[in-house]
This record gives sequence, C-alpha cells and structure tokens, in this order.
Amino acid sequence: MLMQTHEARLAALRAELKRRDLDGFVVPISDEHMSEYVGEYAQRLGWLTGFGGSAGFAAVTLDRAAIFVDGRYTVQVREQVDEKLFEYRSIPGDKLADWLKDACGDGAKIAYDPWLHTWKWVEALEQQVEPAGIAMVPAQSNPIDAVWADRPQPSAAQAIVHEDALAGRPSAEKRGEIADWLGKEGLDAVVVPALDSIAWLLNIRGADVSHTPVALSYVIAHADGSAELFIAPGKVTPELSQHLGNAVRVRDRSEFVAALGEFAGKKVSVDPDFGVVAIAQGLRAGGAQFVFRQDPTILAKAIKNERERQGHRDAQAQDGAAVSRFLRWLGETAPGGEVDELSAAAKLEGFRREHGDLRDTSFDTISAAAGHAALPHYKVDEDSNIPIPPGSIYLVDSGGQYPAGTTDITRTVWIDSPGGAQPTAEMKDRFTRVLKGHIQIDRAVFPQGTTGGQLDVLARQYLWEAGVDYAHGTGHGVGSFLGVHEGPQRIGKPSGGQAGTDQELHAGMILSNEPGYYKAGAFGIRIENLVLTEERAIDGAEGRYLGFETLTFVPLDRKLIERSLLSAAEIAWVDTYHARVRNLLAPRLSGEDLAWLERETEPL
Amino acid sequence: MLMQTHEARLAALRAELKRRDLDGFVVPISDEHMSEYVGEYAQRLGWLTGFGGSAGFAAVTLDRAAIFVDGRYTVQVREQVDEKLFEYRSIPGDKLADWLKDACGDGAKIAYDPWLHTWKWVEALEQQVEPAGIAMVPAQSNPIDAVWADRPQPSAAQAIVHEDALAGRPSAEKRGEIADWLGKEGLDAVVVPALDSIAWLLNIRGADVSHTPVALSYVIAHADGSAELFIAPGKVTPELSQHLGNAVRVRDRSEFVAALGEFAGKKVSVDPDFGVVAIAQGLRAGGAQFVFRQDPTILAKAIKNERERQGHRDAQAQDGAAVSRFLRWLGETAPGGEVDELSAAAKLEGFRREHGDLRDTSFDTISAAAGHAALPHYKVDEDSNIPIPPGSIYLVDSGGQYPAGTTDITRTVWIDSPGGAQPTAEMKDRFTRVLKGHIQIDRAVFPQGTTGGQLDVLARQYLWEAGVDYAHGTGHGVGSFLGVHEGPQRIGKPSGGQAGTDQELHAGMILSNEPGYYKAGAFGIRIENLVLTEERAIDGAEGRYLGFETLTFVPLDRKLIERSLLSAAEIAWVDTYHARVRNLLAPRLSGEDLAWLERETEPL
Repeated sequence: MLMQTHEARLAALRAELKRRDLDGFVVPISDEHMSEYVGEYAQRLGWLTGFGGSAGFAAVTLDRAAIFVDGRYTVQVREQVDEKLFEYRSIPGDKLADWLKDACGDGAKIAYDPWLHTWKWVEALEQQVEPAGIAMVPAQSNPIDAVWADRPQPSAAQAIVHEDALAGRPSAEKRGEIADWLGKEGLDAVVVPALDSIAWLLNIRGADVSHTPVALSYVIAHADGSAELFIAPGKVTPELSQHLGNAVRVRDRSEFVAALGEFAGKKVSVDPDFGVVAIAQGLRAGGAQFVFRQDPTILAKAIKNERERQGHRDAQAQDGAAVSRFLRWLGETAPGGEVDELSAAAKLEGFRREHGDLRDTSFDTISAAAGHAALPHYKVDEDSNIPIPPGSIYLVDSGGQYPAGTTDITRTVWIDSPGGAQPTAEMKDRFTRVLKGHIQIDRAVFPQGTTGGQLDVLARQYLWEAGVDYAHGTGHGVGSFLGVHEGPQRIGKPSGGQAGTDQELHAGMILSNEPGYYKAGAFGIRIENLVLTEERAIDGAEGRYLGFETLTFVPLDRKLIERSLLSAAEIAWVDTYHARVRNLLAPRLSGEDLAWLERETEPL
Repeated sequence: MLMQTHEARLAALRAELKRRDLDGFVVPISDEHMSEYVGEYAQRLGWLTGFGGSAGFAAVTLDRAAIFVDGRYTVQVREQVDEKLFEYRSIPGDKLADWLKDACGDGAKIAYDPWLHTWKWVEALEQQVEPAGIAMVPAQSNPIDAVWADRPQPSAAQAIVHEDALAGRPSAEKRGEIADWLGKEGLDAVVVPALDSIAWLLNIRGADVSHTPVALSYVIAHADGSAELFIAPGKVTPELSQHLGNAVRVRDRSEFVAALGEFAGKKVSVDPDFGVVAIAQGLRAGGAQFVFRQDPTILAKAIKNERERQGHRDAQAQDGAAVSRFLRWLGETAPGGEVDELSAAAKLEGFRREHGDLRDTSFDTISAAAGHAALPHYKVDEDSNIPIPPGSIYLVDSGGQYPAGTTDITRTVWIDSPGGAQPTAEMKDRFTRVLKGHIQIDRAVFPQGTTGGQLDVLARQYLWEAGVDYAHGTGHGVGSFLGVHEGPQRIGKPSGGQAGTDQELHAGMILSNEPGYYKAGAFGIRIENLVLTEERAIDGAEGRYLGFETLTFVPLDRKLIERSLLSAAEIAWVDTYHARVRNLLAPRLSGEDLAWLERETEPL
C-alpha cells in the first residue's frame, strides 16, 4: 500500500473539518484516561505530523497549522515535521490561545475531542479565546479517526490478576477504604479513569500500554464498597472474573457513557487531572451532581505496604544483577568501538530478560553516548543512533517492569579507549558533585510533614557551589508493577512547574534520587537510585522522623569519582553502599562477572 | 485618678454598643497602616483586656466576650486577662467566625473599625458569618475611643529628613520609578498606607512608633511622579518641607479621606495587605476604579543600594562593639548571680548608646535566662523577670536602630558558676547543630531564581538528623533604619504559614540567619547574624549565582561548641569568622574588652 504523505493526511483532516462545518481542531498526545504513555491507536499527533516525541500538540485550521513542542524537542521537531505544513511553536512560551486568535476570525468554531482533554484545559482555553469570538466545541467523534484508514485498534490483550501476595492487600479492603472516603465526603460514587488507579484498586494488570502494565478500562466505585469495571469483554478471563468477585460488576466498556447517566440526583466525583470532559458531560447530562476531587486512590497507591516494599527489594536485586552484567560487558566491549547506543540498549534488555521475571522495560531506555548524554530526555532511534566513542562518557537510564516491582536506574560510566584516555578534571568534578548531592538525598533525615520541594536543595548544593545546575527534577514517585512515574510526591524545585513538590512525604513512598549535570554538546551525567521513605527511630527525637532506605544496588563508576572532593562521611557512604551492592549481587553473579563486581565494590 | 477596672471598661464598651444599636465589636491590635508595631493610642486590646502581647484580638457581644491569642501567649493570657470577663480562644485552631456564630443570633450586627482591618479580612469573615444571619458592619468611629477617657494621643513627634547620603537615592528617582510602574499598569495613582513604604519613598523618618522610625502619614503617588503626603502639620519642619520639594504636596492628614474622593473615573491601586477597608470605601465612594496591587515600593525597598549596604556594614560595626562589651561584662558579672534579665537588657542598651548613634532598639530585647530561653518570643517584664542563674544558658536577641542601618543579633552564651559548672553534652550537641545550620546558610551559593523556602532545609538538616527542629522561620528581611521585619523575602518552611518563602532572592536583600533549638522548660539556643545577598562570580558558572555576605560580627561562645561535630570546612568557617570579628572590632575596643575579644576570637 502506498504510504500516505503528511500533506495528504492534513488535507484529508481539513476536508473532514469542512464537512462538519468546523474551522479547526486541536490534536494532543492523549488518551481517554489522560495517560502519560498512550497506545498506538491514540498516536494521532504522530500520524498527522510525523512527530515522534512523547509530549506536544498540534492545532489545525482550514488554512494554517502549527505544532507546539517543548525545549526537549526543538531539534527533533525540525527533523521530523515539515515546516511547510506545520509552523513550529515552543511551549510554554507560545500559547495555543494566541495562535488560535491569530489564525481564526470572529465566529470561528474550533473543535476538540472531549475524550482527550480535561475540563480545566477546555475552560482555560475558552476564557482566553472567547473574547476574540472563537468558540471551542466538543467534536461528536474524533475527526482524525474518520480519515485515518489504517488506524490500529486498541490493544486486545487480556487483563491479568495481580496476586494478593504481591499487592499486599485484597481489592475488597482497598474498595472499603474508598467507600469510607466517599461516605466522609458525602459522595455516592467516584469515577476512576486513570488506568494505574484502576489496576491498583482491583489488583489487576494488563498489557495495553507500552511500559505500563495496565488494562484499558474505567471504574466507578460506589459508597457501599462495590464497583463497576468497564472493560472490553475479550480482556476478561474466567480467572479474572473469579478474582474480581461478586462485588465488582464487569460491564462492557461500550456501556460506560450510558452508565454515567445512571446517577440522577446522586453526587459523584472525578479527578480534575484525569477525568476528561466527556465524563463530566456524561454525568451532568444524566442529572448527577458532579464535583472535582483528587482521585482517592492516588495517595493510598503511593504509600507502599510491606509486601510491596519487599517486592521492590526483590525486583531490584534481579535488576541490579542484570545492570551489573551489562556494565561489565560494556566496559570490556565498548573500548573496541563496536558498540552503538541501540545495540547497548538491546544488550541491557537481554540481560534483564535473562536475570529476572521481566515483563517490559519501564520506559524507552535512554542510551546516550558523548554529547547525546547532555540531552536529559534523549531517545535513541535508528536515525540518531551513534557508536559509543572510546574515551568518552556514556549514560544509561533504564528500568524494568517485574511483577514484584518497577525499577528505574541511571548509571554514568567512563568508556576506556585503547589509547588509555582518561576522564577530564571537569568531568570528574561534575560527576563527584552530582554524587555528593545524590548522597545527601540518600542520607536525609526529616520530620513528618516535610515535602520533596524542601529536600531538593540538598541534591543541588554542591553543583550550585560551582555555578552549575540541572534543569529537571530530582526525584519522581514510582509504582509497584505500575507507572515508572507515579504521583503525588516529587522532589524538585517548588517553582519548577511540576506538580507534587508540595506533597508531604510518607513512610512507604518510593522516589527516584537522580541529580545530574549536562554540558551541551559535550557530555551528560546522572546518578539515579530508587529510595523508599521509611520511619526513623532516633534517640531523643521530638516527633516523628523519616529517612530513605536505598533500593537500587549497582556499582558506581569509580573512574569518575574525584576522591578529594568527598568528605570522610561521603567516602564512608560510598564504601558502605558498595559493600551492600557486593553482598546483594555476589550470590547472583559468577565467574568474570563476580570478579568484576568484587573489583568495582572495593573501598575507595 | 482611680484606675478603671477591665470589668468597668468592658461594661462601658457594651453600653456604647447598645447606644449605637450594635450587637458586638471586634478589637484587633492594629492601626490605620496595618503596622506590625502600633503606637500607644492604638493599643485598644490592651486597654480593654489587660493583655500585653503583640498579637491577638478580642470579640465582644452584649453578653459574651473572648480573647484570641496564638501558642506564644497561651500562658501569658491566663496571667493577664480575667477569664470571668473574656473566654480564652487559641488561634489558628479556634475561628472568630465560629465563636460569633455561637455567641450571636440571626440578625446580629457585629461592628468592626474599617480603619483597622483589610478588605480581605472583612470579606472572608462576612462569607463565613452571613449564612448564620450575622452582618458585619463598619463602625462610624471606634466605639472604644468613645469610652477610653484617657486614651493617649497619637505621637506628635516631628518627622525628619533621611539624608540622600544614607538613602543612596533621591526620592524623586524613587517616585519616578513608581510613576513608570503606574504607567505600565495603566493606573493613575497608588495609595501607600504602609508607614515604612512612605518613609522609604520620600526619604523621611519619624518617631511615632516604638522600634520603627516612621512618621504617621499617608501617601498618594501619582503617575506624573508627584505625590501627596498627608501628615499632621505639627510634624512638618521647614527643613522637611524643603527636602520634600515642590513635587510632594504636603496636606493635613485630616484631609486624607476627602482626598480619596478626588479620583472620580481614575484607576487607583492599594496593597491588599496594608490598605484598610476605609481606604477602599473612600475610593469607591468618590467614583474611583479601585484595584488591589502589591505596594510597588516593597520589592524596591528590600533591594538595598550600595549606600544602604555600606550603611548596614557601618551600623553593624558600632553594634558589634556594643554587644561584645556587653558579653564580656555579662561573662564576668553574671556568675556572681546578681544580674537579672531586665538589668542585662538595660546594660546592653547602655553599651549600644555609648558606642553608636543609637536612635532606638529595633524591638523589645529578648533577654532570656534558663527555661525562659526555650520561649522563642519571650518578652521580659517586671513580672517575668528572673535572675540569670550561674551555670546556665542565657539567650539575648536584640537590635538597634541606627541612621545607617537596622541591626538584629542573637547570641547564646554559657554563664559560668563559681562551682565551675559546665554545659551538658546535650547543650553542646544542640548548640553545635544550630551552628552548623547557621554556617550552611551563610555559605550557601544558589542560582538567581532561588527562594528562601528552598534554602531553609540547609539550616535545619543537622537538627533533623538528631530528631529535633525549631518552630519558627530561619530568616526575615530587615530594613535600612526601618522595620526590623521587612518583606517580601523570608527563609522558612514553605508550609510554615508565613508569607515570603516563595519570594525569589535578589542581590541587595538583607536577611536574618537564625536557626535555633528550644527544650521546653530547660534551655533555648539561637544563633543569629544578618546577611546581605550578593552576586557571586564563579569561574565557569552557567547563569547568575548569588551568595551571602555576613553583616554581623560578634564572637560566638566557644564554650558551647562541640568541636568534634564540626567538619574541617566548618571549623575553618568559625576561625575565619572570628578573625574577621577581631579585625573589625579591635579598633573599637580597648583594655580588658580588647583582651576579651582576642581570647574569644582565637582559632578553635
């Protein structure tokens, strides 16, 4: 079949808009659940424009079109998207509303898909464009779907049971808590659209979205502890039905809209960040009194129970052995100049499959050589792939989805060269400052009530001392065989524009600890372990105090450490960490791998 | 004259309320400028209830009355206020609105003085009590003033010129900037009610309020750079008139309300935190379009110019010599057991008067012995005064108002005993942890854009490590011969409930650096220096970086330092600090004082 050009696709979309008497349409990367990662069937922006990034949106009118991407994708959008078809715009500086006001006349009707946007997104946009006479109108169906002939079907993968032995708590207990919450809030029901929330609440998993083991579905949870699960019937096995039990009514996903109409006179909540406009409209149309409340599973899901904590420790041991074998292989092979970014990533995934019960990587591996490592969100593909140069810094940020837990680790290593090139003093200085910050987060002790926004400076202070910084957060939450990015907590600058830095940390929350440094065009450094927030018993403590248990155990590259920059306490931290790495991984490694581990975990 | 009882005063107020057909009245500690410190004439709460604290309010109905104070004053209110007359309530837990709803029936009219409350205070209260049928009504005049026979007159002190040599910039230049701001905001004028803003804008000072050298007045600044100063004619000397010049029209303060009516059709702003209800009402009544905007002098005032910075350095040198002489005197005299908290404070003020151009203390000296020091805001008076026990910790937090600058310093010292008692290991541990945090703030380097909320953890981390903390902010802004507490910046927990922790720090801002530790009933520790935010030139810096110049130089008590808890870098900081103390103060001291200085500033 002839590949349709993006020009032809854009023309087809415009013809469809004309047919519907619309003046424009907004195309996000989003699904009906406001997921971070979306299935192929929902990759409408990529289909229309050719853009392969994970964030951005386009706006199309009958005679103009623009694509909006952030700083991470400034270069990529120019390579992938034809400027003759789509003007380039930079977010957050350039505003969609301004572009629409420039592109459209008074009386224009700009459509959006009410299944792909939140209420507050529409409301904010309407307030800005209405004074210019522009109306935002919900499309009856997505106009792209009408012209996307070979659009993939949503995944038909079966949903699976997440055993109580891993989940730690039965679904009935979790639903009971939600029911208590509904009672306290005076609500009759809550609509849960977020796929990981559904997975957590019902102790189910799926394979419908890459990297996140969730099943496409909706839940409505009721004040009596029962729930309705809206899911394609083909996804439901007898085993799953039995697991769900009588208190969870399984309904066809196609009945979801009709079900929203069954709450006349009832009070129903939905999360403002995950509930799309169509859900709110469905509830209102059916006569429900509808209110916005944070998804009540979010905080409960973030606070891991004892089983989940142990699961993470188990998953990390499997993952650490695999990453260690990879690093040994890389250190021996890459100096020959024959390893490239893609083959390295593939090798790493292979070790993970060999070593543990890997179900998926937890995100696209960032395998970044030399200057590529200076792009914190670099994604290697066939076009960008380069050989890893001997005598350079290589950064690998990766993770695995194991039934016991989700992992996420970054290591930055020096690749030897046959000529014996050594890291520069600048590289070692920066690596060691990143390491010092990483250690300060790992060692932090803080009272109950402290937020990730308060701790962030501990990771940055030594870089700041040298007049440098990193333009990303220090830590994100991580799920239990769920999203590698999970709210509500975050370690980051309070003004960094990302939600969660004002969330109080609780014992049981998992966070990444990943300070970095990036020198444009030259090299990049990031050191990432996961940590588990835990209670700390301190003699004479006044009040409750918390600290972090380290979860990730893989050697740090000693070639990049400038020992003279470390305090005695920091050297002790590194030595203790390496001793724990050795204890944990030695039983899982053998032969040359074990010898490598022993060398790499010697005291500094 | 017979002293009127509080019972009689309360009865007189109730009779006045009845006469005016009112059901109640709210009595704050506040003046027409929403000042932090208010003149005697405005101490209505103290007159009515006997309460001597600096924060709180009362509510009076025809048959009930309550006084609301915060945790600092829980004990004091019980000693000073008769519970038979006033129920005790704790803020922020107990709410005025709840009390009013409990105390008043449907249809009640509760009055407030529109010159003593902000618009948002009234608005928030109205929203809470209106559903219960309670109306908040502005009083035509303050009903307490009608029954307070011997109420002091507002101060009649003359306003004085603050020389350009100290202010660093002429008023005309400052007014020009305000005019530019008005133009940019599309405003015709701004009403400036805050007394320190007026003083800064016009380069004038006064003596109408204790501790803060301001003159009771109002300013209206216009978009053409001119201004009107509303002030009692008796305060205006020929010298002041000449200083103000033609572009500042001096009007009688009694014309202020009428002047608010002169803006029909004009757009005028006022600060929501400093503009009282009566100002907004006056503008509206006159047909002005009135908007809330932050007082445009606040940020400009906080960023000290070169002259002001040098002024602070000069004032600190005078102040440091006085405090040092006091500490030597105290260390020699107090072990005899003959010094009490009040006599110590008086002695300190005496040294300040001897040593510098002292105009006033910058707040009531906190002179706190033994367990009193565990109350961070302890205020000594004749009733609370105790002898300083030999063999104990003594804390003194004090400051001076000098024309060149305002100072604020806390030192915590061990008082020797004839028996040779030594500080306990716990005292030294806590003191040293406080010192370590103090050092981390002093040494902090951070990128432009950083807030005080981000830095706060640096001061607390070593206390947290030991499971303890302090329940106050780490640093507040300080004025230039103005308020010892000055906005908008603050170092503190973002969730601490005090404004300013989200304010970006700028070079030129002064902050206190005052971590502490308080063991209830036993001892208290605080170490406070002032610091000046400055640009930092760093080799290879990416972006603009800031740090702190230390302003305060007085020896730290080495008897309380546990050297083994300090890192090499921290010991070097202490030694360098003490060497600078010696260099600065040695020329100002002689004889035994100089010998003391030399001993106290030896390397650790």
